[in-house]
Amino acid sequence: MPLKRFDRPVILGMVGDSASGKTTLARGVARILGEHRVAAIRTDDYHRYTRAERAMNGLSALDPRANYMDILEQHLGLLSQGKPILKPVYDHATGTLAPAEYVTPKPFIIVEGLLGYSTKEMRDCFDVKVYLDPEEDLRVDWKVQRDTAERGYTRDQVMASLEKRRSDSPTYIHPQRAFADIVVQFRRPEGQEDERGAHLDVRHILRPTLPHPNLAPLVDAGAKNELSLDLTRDEDGKPVDVLGLSGSMTDERAAALENLLWELIPEASHLRDNVGEFTNADKEQVVSHPLALSQLLIAYHMVKAALGIHVI
Amino acid sequence: MPLKRFDRPVILGMVGDSASGKTTLARGVARILGEHRVAAIRTDDYHRYTRAERAMNGLSALDPRANYMDILEQHLGLLSQGKPILKPVYDHATGTLAPAEYVTPKPFIIVEGLLGYSTKEMRDCFDVKVYLDPEEDLRVDWKVQRDTAERGYTRDQVMASLEKRRSDSPTYIHPQRAFADIVVQFRRPEGQEDERGAHLDVRHILRPTLPHPNLAPLVDAGAKNELSLDLTRDEDGKPVDVLGLSGSMTDERAAALENLLWELIPEASHLRDNVGEFTNADKEQVVSHPLALSQLLIAYHMVKAALGIHVI
Repeated sequence: MPLKRFDRPVILGMVGDSASGKTTLARGVARILGEHRVAAIRTDDYHRYTRAERAMNGLSALDPRANYMDILEQHLGLLSQGKPILKPVYDHATGTLAPAEYVTPKPFIIVEGLLGYSTKEMRDCFDVKVYLDPEEDLRVDWKVQRDTAERGYTRDQVMASLEKRRSDSPTYIHPQRAFADIVVQFRRPEGQEDERGAHLDVRHILRPTLPHPNLAPLVDAGAKNELSLDLTRDEDGKPVDVLGLSGSMTDERAAALENLLWELIPEASHLRDNVGEFTNADKEQVVSHPLALSQLLIAYHMVKAALGIHVI
Repeated sequence: MPLKRFDRPVILGMVGDSASGKTTLARGVARILGEHRVAAIRTDDYHRYTRAERAMNGLSALDPRANYMDILEQHLGLLSQGKPILKPVYDHATGTLAPAEYVTPKPFIIVEGLLGYSTKEMRDCFDVKVYLDPEEDLRVDWKVQRDTAERGYTRDQVMASLEKRRSDSPTYIHPQRAFADIVVQFRRPEGQEDERGAHLDVRHILRPTLPHPNLAPLVDAGAKNELSLDLTRDEDGKPVDVLGLSGSMTDERAAALENLLWELIPEASHLRDNVGEFTNADKEQVVSHPLALSQLLIAYHMVKAALGIHVI
């Protein structure tokens, strides 16, 4: 299907600490929206220094001073107006800067990284803002696994890097949580401290900054231990809805919930595809039902936003 | 002297074919304006392909398709609003693309390159537009000298490159001449076919698109064979003033003319500095009076434009 004309792209933010699951979630959302319709931007490309330079100047990659923040803001503004950018490139494999690359906006843009919600000008560019907030022990495990497998670090180097960032995360990353429409929290189920993948539970903290779908039919369809929707107070005391999805959900229940979600956006039925796959520590493609439903809920908001602007 | 606050930079365009003398002229203007007050942009940095890629795809560097034209236009617009850019980098020594670099606007910006006046949006960004149009034989000599000395080409490679570009120059470069406020033409004096440097004559074709200074006092002060101002028709038939400066001008006469030009911009007397130096084929620093006066006339317009906007 050729791309339709569109006035401006619909932009999704996927912000969170290092190894909080941003790429896995973003990739699934892109697959639902149709990868040819999605431009992906990683804010790590806006790193100002090489890995060696950061080691010299003592700045972590989380520090805004170690990133071209004003250029990121400028580029988000240009993309949100449908204009192309010449994006810098940071090569994670070598920790060096590479030649800039040309990015044309597509109907959907997914911006994933550490620092996307730092300024009001940046935040105003997003249609949907997600913040990843997994259990800390889980994140540390994910980071060790990813950085040793893909970025050439040793386990000790990863632990040292985490230690060095211990004050930068609360200073620069965590405050962005307050600006998200949806906070996604992957957690190990009670008594299953070794769970790292397909059977993690997930909680969605839903703020009224987005028109969330009516989830009552889903909750009614799920058993209480598989799916829950609770009015509660967030860690900052503000009222929120919390949608709980259990990692022990059966395939049948998950399929029923997926069907219900698809029925909420009949205009997008042609986008239906496999969702929820991820690559586990053993390099196997596995399906996580909570992950699939998280991707679908986020895609729901992207599609709804797009329907207000252009035909998808 | 610290930089004063400024609302927007004053932007000079220095456009012309390869090896037409852009850098030499731009460097002298920057020296007059004060190098710490000048940001220099070379549009060659917007090359889309490496030298090897161009050899493969058959595009010359003069072809707009071989350049990020829309990004150049975007960046000129941002700079003209006083905003920073992350500029791509093309490395002439190796013919490869390098990591982007951060450029903060300064009170003056000099944009030098092959393709600065290609679109109306680009042209609207400039306060002063210069086009370099030297005698073709002279340009070929300059190109051979520069590309073999600084860019690692052999003489045969340079001649082959010129041959390949023979149709691209009239198609893409020459049409930009029509948009310049000042066309600068270096020429060998009658009967001195070996002259390449300090004693070249220069003609300035002055279009009424800029408020040129009253040159009558200068012309009166110069002998007819050293300095002339003539109403004539340009090669397109349009009426223009042509200011002629002779390469055989005496030091005394040139100094007197420089003094007169400085007196036209008394607010900028603190900017007075050595002008007109260039490095000749024997790597010597020499002074050319026509070059010095050309630099000064261009700087005059930059200073006049700046005085309307900010204190310099």
